[in-house]
Amino acid sequence: MRAAYYIGNKNFQIEPGNAVPPGAGEVRIDVAYCGICGTDLHVYHGAMDRRVGDHRIIGHEMSGVVGALGDGITSLAVGERVVVRPLGSCGECPACKAGHDHICHKLKFLGLDSDGAMQTSWTVPAALVHRVGPSMDLRHAALVEPVAVACHDVRRGRVSPGEDVLVVGFGPIGMLVALVARHTGANVRVAEVNEDRSRIAATLGFPVCNPQTTSSEALLETTGGKGFDVVFEVAGVQQATDLAVAVAAARGRVVMVAIHSKPAQIDLFRFFWREVELIGARVYRPEDFDEAIHLLGDGTIPANLIITETVDLDYIADAFAGAHKGMKTILAIGEQS
Amino acid sequence: MRAAYYIGNKNFQIEPGNAVPPGAGEVRIDVAYCGICGTDLHVYHGAMDRRVGDHRIIGHEMSGVVGALGDGITSLAVGERVVVRPLGSCGECPACKAGHDHICHKLKFLGLDSDGAMQTSWTVPAALVHRVGPSMDLRHAALVEPVAVACHDVRRGRVSPGEDVLVVGFGPIGMLVALVARHTGANVRVAEVNEDRSRIAATLGFPVCNPQTTSSEALLETTGGKGFDVVFEVAGVQQATDLAVAVAAARGRVVMVAIHSKPAQIDLFRFFWREVELIGARVYRPEDFDEAIHLLGDGTIPANLIITETVDLDYIADAFAGAHKGMKTILAIGEQS
Ligand SMILES: [Zn+2]
Ligand SMILES: [Zn+2]
Ligand SMILES: [Zn+2]
Ligand SMILES: [Zn+2]
Repeated sequence: MRAAYYIGNKNFQIEPGNAVPPGAGEVRIDVAYCGICGTDLHVYHGAMDRRVGDHRIIGHEMSGVVGALGDGITSLAVGERVVVRPLGSCGECPACKAGHDHICHKLKFLGLDSDGAMQTSWTVPAALVHRVGPSMDLRHAALVEPVAVACHDVRRGRVSPGEDVLVVGFGPIGMLVALVARHTGANVRVAEVNEDRSRIAATLGFPVCNPQTTSSEALLETTGGKGFDVVFEVAGVQQATDLAVAVAAARGRVVMVAIHSKPAQIDLFRFFWREVELIGARVYRPEDFDEAIHLLGDGTIPANLIITETVDLDYIADAFAGAHKGMKTILAIGEQS
Repeated sequence: MRAAYYIGNKNFQIEPGNAVPPGAGEVRIDVAYCGICGTDLHVYHGAMDRRVGDHRIIGHEMSGVVGALGDGITSLAVGERVVVRPLGSCGECPACKAGHDHICHKLKFLGLDSDGAMQTSWTVPAALVHRVGPSMDLRHAALVEPVAVACHDVRRGRVSPGEDVLVVGFGPIGMLVALVARHTGANVRVAEVNEDRSRIAATLGFPVCNPQTTSSEALLETTGGKGFDVVFEVAGVQQATDLAVAVAAARGRVVMVAIHSKPAQIDLFRFFWREVELIGARVYRPEDFDEAIHLLGDGTIPANLIITETVDLDYIADAFAGAHKGMKTILAIGEQS
């Protein structure tokens, strides 16, 4: 068994270790792949040192195979292909009691608040494990977690067939949101300033515009003046928020997918005038994982186009240094069946 | 027939005139009472001169009796007590076509964009007329329009029985929102800085706090740390918006009732962290008028406590000058049956 520890200052250290035997209600997973996510990059750049410390195995966008079962586990079998929903909730707080345990007041994120998937052997509560089926490519399965984020965002936006949707920002999550929304039956358009990303959007068949050269009036015209029924703000900058609010239809929903660490200016008059809604979205619920597995299985999500690089765990430092270049870098962790 | 014209610069002029005979699909109403609303006060202070001009009959919070029917009107009879939903929509725009005609892209507000109810005889489309029933006091019926605003706000917030609700700002609309929300079965609390208004809230049985001396943490504690399921922001200042967002529960809804003419700072991180929603609300729909009539009829809304003054139309200038002092000033317009 080997594990990659984040040790601070853009450094990782590969260490040997002992696989943790699964306790009651737990499962040990032989990790196959683990994607590098925006949050992991934040850790790499030192922005989350206070939360993760200087000896932490990170990673959560993983896939693997069940290696061993703890006492009492009958729902899973050794050898099954699985992914993990990396959320630990307390079960006691008001959010948990109200059925919103994915936004538990004391939510623990596996791979940040406890050790994650960038190790060959990962032991987790069985309740967090989702089967992906015997035919799914494990490299593709490493995308289940980010696709589940997109499924959750689209669900929060209550996107329905025939609606006009705008996705502002076409990074990895924006791309997945656009694909999931289109699968739901919406007419999806993309606003993106970066040329490379715009090209990918066009390749995937999305009408795309550059909001720095296209006015919000021109964007509204693409919907016959109605505005967009749902706008996903995935860029996280003030201009994107302004655009999202300006082009929302009467009773339009603006889903805030990007994480704004500082307060933003919001044109509340527009919320009054058009009865707009702003909707917060965070991580996912079990049904989002189920849907993500389905959408990767039926090819709705073009996994090969999204995974731009696969790098062996031994080269984790290089992988992190170059991860910003492509859409998604995946680490090959253990045995790849 | 006589009418009060707003002629600019805090001035009104009472003029005689000829009642407009109702055309096909119209009704002429003998106006009994007309309340002075925050919007009317804006007009009075000159803030809407560009929109209303300098020879406009304003007023929309009215009650009256059907005086004459135009061709084709079978749904109403002369002598019936009525109120008017003062919205003219185009029927053609995307909002109208989507069934949201109350936020029509070209919405005309009667009493601003065309002449309103501060005249003894008002002719309007019959489709905008709601019967209040023979037993309702016409003075009370003049509150139907503002109560309908509150019904709409509570509906937009999806308030359900047993939920914790906070109303920030206890002016006339905040008071009505609190009463309607409590009638829905919610536990309603009030935050208000003004002592007189706080006293009225307490008289009506609402727990009330002063947000200048009560911290948001202390407010959260009143819900056992959960936060409020629905917060109504009826104050329209940055501190109120901050408070509303800070005390919302997981998946809590913040209904923006106040009109912010300038963009406000919004803590979007909180929207992410707790999956909060911000919901815009504007005017009302027919079902809100029906509910308002019901709530005034059954005494849920204590009309006598809300109407602090009734002033004859001849003294309209005095009425406007003093309207800010009490909760609601009502003009007595014509014959009061
Ligand atoms: Zn992730
Ligand atoms: Zn919890
Ligand atoms: Zn009004
Ligand atoms: Zn319209």
